[in-house]
Amino acid sequence: MTAPFRTGLAALAALSLTTPPVLAQTSSEPTAASADPMIGTGGEGHTFPGAVAPFGMIQLSPDTDTTCQIRKCYSHAAGYRYEDPTIQGFSMTHFSGAGHSDLGDFLIQPVSGDTVGLEPDDYRSPFDHATEQAVPGYYAVTLAKPGVRAEMTAGTRVGVQRYTFPAGKAAHLLFDLRSSLYNYPGKILWSSIRIRADGTITGARETRGWAPARKLFFAIRPSRQITGHAFLDREKKVEYRGFQGPSRGADDAQQLAGRELVARFDFGQIDGPLEVKVAISAVDEDGAIANLDSEPGNFDAVRAATGKAWDQALGAVELEGPAPMKKMVATALYHSLIAPSVFSDADGRWRGPDDQVHQASNFTFHSTFSLWDTFRAEHPLLLLTQSEKKNADFVNSLIASQQVSPFGILPVWQFNGRETWTMIGYHAVPVIADAYMKGIRGFDPNAALDAMVKSATYGPYGGLDQYMKLGYVPIDKEPEAASKTVEYAYDDWAIARMAKAMGKADIAAPFEARAGNWRNSFDVKTGFLRARKADGTYRTPFDPTAINYGSDYTEGNAWQYSWFVPQDQAGMFKLLGGDAAAVKKLDAMFDFDNSKLDYSHAEDIAGLIGQYIHGNEPSHHVAYLYSYAGQPWRTQERLKQIVESQYKPTPDGLSGNDDLGQMSAWFVFTALGFYPVAPGSNEYVIGRPFLDRATLNLPNGKRFAIVAEGLSDTNKYVGKVLLNGKPLARGYLKHDEIIAGGELRFTMSAKPNKSWATGKAVRPYSMSTAPR
Amino acid sequence: MTAPFRTGLAALAALSLTTPPVLAQTSSEPTAASADPMIGTGGEGHTFPGAVAPFGMIQLSPDTDTTCQIRKCYSHAAGYRYEDPTIQGFSMTHFSGAGHSDLGDFLIQPVSGDTVGLEPDDYRSPFDHATEQAVPGYYAVTLAKPGVRAEMTAGTRVGVQRYTFPAGKAAHLLFDLRSSLYNYPGKILWSSIRIRADGTITGARETRGWAPARKLFFAIRPSRQITGHAFLDREKKVEYRGFQGPSRGADDAQQLAGRELVARFDFGQIDGPLEVKVAISAVDEDGAIANLDSEPGNFDAVRAATGKAWDQALGAVELEGPAPMKKMVATALYHSLIAPSVFSDADGRWRGPDDQVHQASNFTFHSTFSLWDTFRAEHPLLLLTQSEKKNADFVNSLIASQQVSPFGILPVWQFNGRETWTMIGYHAVPVIADAYMKGIRGFDPNAALDAMVKSATYGPYGGLDQYMKLGYVPIDKEPEAASKTVEYAYDDWAIARMAKAMGKADIAAPFEARAGNWRNSFDVKTGFLRARKADGTYRTPFDPTAINYGSDYTEGNAWQYSWFVPQDQAGMFKLLGGDAAAVKKLDAMFDFDNSKLDYSHAEDIAGLIGQYIHGNEPSHHVAYLYSYAGQPWRTQERLKQIVESQYKPTPDGLSGNDDLGQMSAWFVFTALGFYPVAPGSNEYVIGRPFLDRATLNLPNGKRFAIVAEGLSDTNKYVGKVLLNGKPLARGYLKHDEIIAGGELRFTMSAKPNKSWATGKAVRPYSMSTAPR
Repeated sequence: MTAPFRTGLAALAALSLTTPPVLAQTSSEPTAASADPMIGTGGEGHTFPGAVAPFGMIQLSPDTDTTCQIRKCYSHAAGYRYEDPTIQGFSMTHFSGAGHSDLGDFLIQPVSGDTVGLEPDDYRSPFDHATEQAVPGYYAVTLAKPGVRAEMTAGTRVGVQRYTFPAGKAAHLLFDLRSSLYNYPGKILWSSIRIRADGTITGARETRGWAPARKLFFAIRPSRQITGHAFLDREKKVEYRGFQGPSRGADDAQQLAGRELVARFDFGQIDGPLEVKVAISAVDEDGAIANLDSEPGNFDAVRAATGKAWDQALGAVELEGPAPMKKMVATALYHSLIAPSVFSDADGRWRGPDDQVHQASNFTFHSTFSLWDTFRAEHPLLLLTQSEKKNADFVNSLIASQQVSPFGILPVWQFNGRETWTMIGYHAVPVIADAYMKGIRGFDPNAALDAMVKSATYGPYGGLDQYMKLGYVPIDKEPEAASKTVEYAYDDWAIARMAKAMGKADIAAPFEARAGNWRNSFDVKTGFLRARKADGTYRTPFDPTAINYGSDYTEGNAWQYSWFVPQDQAGMFKLLGGDAAAVKKLDAMFDFDNSKLDYSHAEDIAGLIGQYIHGNEPSHHVAYLYSYAGQPWRTQERLKQIVESQYKPTPDGLSGNDDLGQMSAWFVFTALGFYPVAPGSNEYVIGRPFLDRATLNLPNGKRFAIVAEGLSDTNKYVGKVLLNGKPLARGYLKHDEIIAGGELRFTMSAKPNKSWATGKAVRPYSMSTAPR
Repeated sequence: MTAPFRTGLAALAALSLTTPPVLAQTSSEPTAASADPMIGTGGEGHTFPGAVAPFGMIQLSPDTDTTCQIRKCYSHAAGYRYEDPTIQGFSMTHFSGAGHSDLGDFLIQPVSGDTVGLEPDDYRSPFDHATEQAVPGYYAVTLAKPGVRAEMTAGTRVGVQRYTFPAGKAAHLLFDLRSSLYNYPGKILWSSIRIRADGTITGARETRGWAPARKLFFAIRPSRQITGHAFLDREKKVEYRGFQGPSRGADDAQQLAGRELVARFDFGQIDGPLEVKVAISAVDEDGAIANLDSEPGNFDAVRAATGKAWDQALGAVELEGPAPMKKMVATALYHSLIAPSVFSDADGRWRGPDDQVHQASNFTFHSTFSLWDTFRAEHPLLLLTQSEKKNADFVNSLIASQQVSPFGILPVWQFNGRETWTMIGYHAVPVIADAYMKGIRGFDPNAALDAMVKSATYGPYGGLDQYMKLGYVPIDKEPEAASKTVEYAYDDWAIARMAKAMGKADIAAPFEARAGNWRNSFDVKTGFLRARKADGTYRTPFDPTAINYGSDYTEGNAWQYSWFVPQDQAGMFKLLGGDAAAVKKLDAMFDFDNSKLDYSHAEDIAGLIGQYIHGNEPSHHVAYLYSYAGQPWRTQERLKQIVESQYKPTPDGLSGNDDLGQMSAWFVFTALGFYPVAPGSNEYVIGRPFLDRATLNLPNGKRFAIVAEGLSDTNKYVGKVLLNGKPLARGYLKHDEIIAGGELRFTMSAKPNKSWATGKAVRPYSMSTAPR
């Protein structure tokens, strides 16, 4: 469990910032200049500090330790951990903020001098954070042991390393095919390496990690002549049974295959830096080589191109406000633009969930879909910051995956094209529905709806057969049944929304009915969502504070999960006994005395405020729910409490895993002043802004500014709201109002405005009371 | 070591044949009708009895035991062993007569009734040879345990199984992805299986056997609806480290991946047979499906098409003579037409020695090149029996392999596109040179010559760097140095021959010089080829009868290897002291008392006549060498001795591994009456015929008949020889004389003709004395 965070603004002050963050200080710097990739690399963030282009296929980043044992793996999910004193090498694939992990493919470490040890403890090097530099698309550090300055940059499908060796010492590269994140004995199923006639090093690795039997190919091209090399297999010799003679003619120096390979490349004493251009492919070695060639240029050229790409991508939101807040928001925006990652090769080929190679036409296939996390705010944020083409790419990738899935369903948690079956729900559904509802085209809506319906009706998946029969997932048939029931119901609502918008009432009707299924697992007597058995009774004993794997809930308990009815929060409040009861229960959640609870056995349970757990996703929309009860000022209070306690502009600045951008997307939306509680509704619940001014440069070319007049630590309430100069009485904003461009102007106040947005007619969408 | 063979004709008589084989009995039956795939399935033959089309990609054959332990593997190299009482199942890939083995991919076994055991001992079934039927392209047997009639047939890229289940019992198929030939713990690196929406079962397996990390994909389509199935992983659960919760939603029934998979398919009680059409691909599952679809039709249709293909292929040689001899020759011809196997998919894609997928244009890629064996007589036989296109396919496959080889050299022992580095030499070189010299075009001779030169000058391979420096391979640097030196020298001569024919004297010259390198390892003092050290001295102690792995020789000793100078046998005889000395030494070899020697530690050493070892290749040309000394009648005597002791028309009828057709090709040539001692010379040394009449239907449409007038057990010598009616004074035949069509007429005699073909001018090619 996370160490308790120092309270927000106090913590900022403790960082000895020259300007107290309470003072509004604006700046005309581009947003990219404020982003700091080091945020989240310590604590529980699980982000990586290395070089990546926006949605880049390849992530060149230092791994401080890949020799993790079972318990240490979790803390090293991104390879790099700020607290570690040494760097083991630089690998090419990393997740940004994942809980579970994998990747860390193809680790290279520079070594200088005459002796090159082959084991991690031989070649790992101490480093000093003072030598590190990390900006979007560029990372550098000095490795003390070999005396090498190591720099990383990355394009969309290429990475370039630049190593400057000390004068008078021989330069080597150590390439360790045994290294991997979340490694364990037997993870490397097979690997191979060779040097081609033109000096390009290619090979492949097949690993048995989070994704089963994941294949990845590499191409590596050094800028200098290789003067010597060695390929070694460190595995105890496995003899082919039946061949009793000596190997006749096998030439291990030219090509080697095995399970514990390590290679050494020598360059002699060199003047000036050694550049190493690298690429990967899930298709084949030719694909990796073609990817390598698809983005020409040396280190500086790739760095410049990617720097420009980041300037443009981060320019989607211009920021004005105190430097620490700008830094936090800019970094959050940066973290929201890393995944889903480009995954198809330059020629459009990609390897799918069926482990077969397919050809993408008219779209770029993306993978790394952490959908249980990202359907909430990450994908909605991308709809405001990325082009229609990019968002259509995401949808097309999901549809293409479904079409070749052996199960015929949309991805659940997909990376490198493979299904990991991690987390629950069919949340590709709201991602697609939200995109469609917000006007994204460039994909086949009929194919999309077909994929969504198939995913929602595939009986063998996660108790869906029972859910369709009983109207809820029964806990005696399927674990985590309560969470599944409510998440399925929301996804069903998303299908109904899109089907209705497409004029397909016959499809919409049954799913609109299913959208009410959350009621079937909601125990009015206790006021909690609870798991029911197939016979209709609730499972006992019932402890709303218990968190266990395989329990009634998914990475959470009744306190967090009872609120998950984004499609009908007002309906849920009714079951609780009305608005007052809902507010009381919300307060009970936030103010819960958790001092006697211990959740250290459960990963991902971090960032606690009472029973509100900001470090994990089920809580993310809960602070906004006061507004559904007509008390938006309570939402405003809670948001301040969360922002100040859960985010910091420091390496340990994230209270939980960033989860491929979801933690960050929450922060970007919240800082802007609104949040998409129910993706698919085309509404954003208004919270309160945390920046003096922010301007969205929308994909359609229009600009939407959010201004917070008089914002300060004491002016923490929304006094009034003007949209394009006219008072906005509603507690929510419509998507069309944003994309039309204009200005949302808050006037902040030291006192809550208890008459604004309180009436039922001006509250956010709920299907049963405010259907819209 | 092989049990001693009963002497030939006595053995034939002991088989209770109705007609004594000494009587010439002709027949007008097609050759295919005489072929018996059971020959070689016992003893040391290592052939398989199952169904295969000529050069077919897929070989459907019963495996009697794949659970071999280390010592038993060798005897089960082809999966089936005649002596075994049970059949474990029917797999799709088999070698014909290989020593070392692998394959046995994708084993299916029919099971009837209500209980389906998953272990080999549960599902293996006894069988009776009386129920077996094996003809080219078709195999059938009755499995006693399930009461199932099992039939196999195969096209070029499809196989069809037909199972007739007993009435009233449920029909099942057991599919065991753990099963493999030459299996051992850890051989299966990964495997997967799934059922597609249309009922096609697809999947893949990656094995670590003779070839490293060999990938093979399958597609299986039953003719009846699958009513139920199960996919099971029998491996002790390997947990992904870091994922501590339960698997959420993984659907093992739809798709499974792992290392110890077994599947069960249920069909219920069925009327009539169940057909199972199967295909494989080294490229991907789509390739396997496309291969499956490339040859339409049910069992009977495929069987008929393949029967026709065999009639045509075996019709290349029409046979007249005693039935047992016809059977032996027809079967030998059959065994010579199985490899090299088609390996590219129907769409032309193939996986190469670099483990990457390539596209063949204008040729069909073949693999399974057992070149150390097959350069001798198998490929020369294919040049007489197969089309120019087919032979060009072989050459193009070799060139294509070289062009994508990580080592830049031609295949050594290649199967499934992968290099195994088994045996020695660069014998793709004489295969290509012989084809070119005999007029095969349809490939790029410049690319071929380039590939040959590269293979002969690649220093890291088999001591070539030392060979090029010293003129011989030094034993203190490289094992089996003596054998390597003489085989390299012959291959070098083949390069010189082809380069000269192409008008490239500059390339020919250095290789012609290298062709004399055998002299550098020939110890005139002892009269034996011996291994020398880098300092020029011969290694001691020297025992010409010793056979050990990693010794001075490859699967042999000084007795066999001293004779390997096909390009200059006369030159070698000179070093021995002349013709008389050579004959004396040949006799000493054949008449050697080996009763006190034990070679049981060495595989492949079988079929001994003194120190002549017919069961392995180095001896194969030796009986023909008397003719080089002007004593062709001694060759005639030795051939009778070998044929009668080493071949029988019975399951144990081969004295050694058939080695992908080489043992058989020796027999076909010898039965015809001539043999290609030096491929590349365009000459065949005349032996003596064993058939009353044989007619070659040549690829160019012409016919060449060989008639043996008065052939009988006593008329065992060649009296006179007429070519197209004119006396042939030479002891050899020219290739052009055969392909021009015509008749070679022997008059057999009870006494040797000691005046025919004795003079130096009429002896076969030797580069130093009869260069031609």
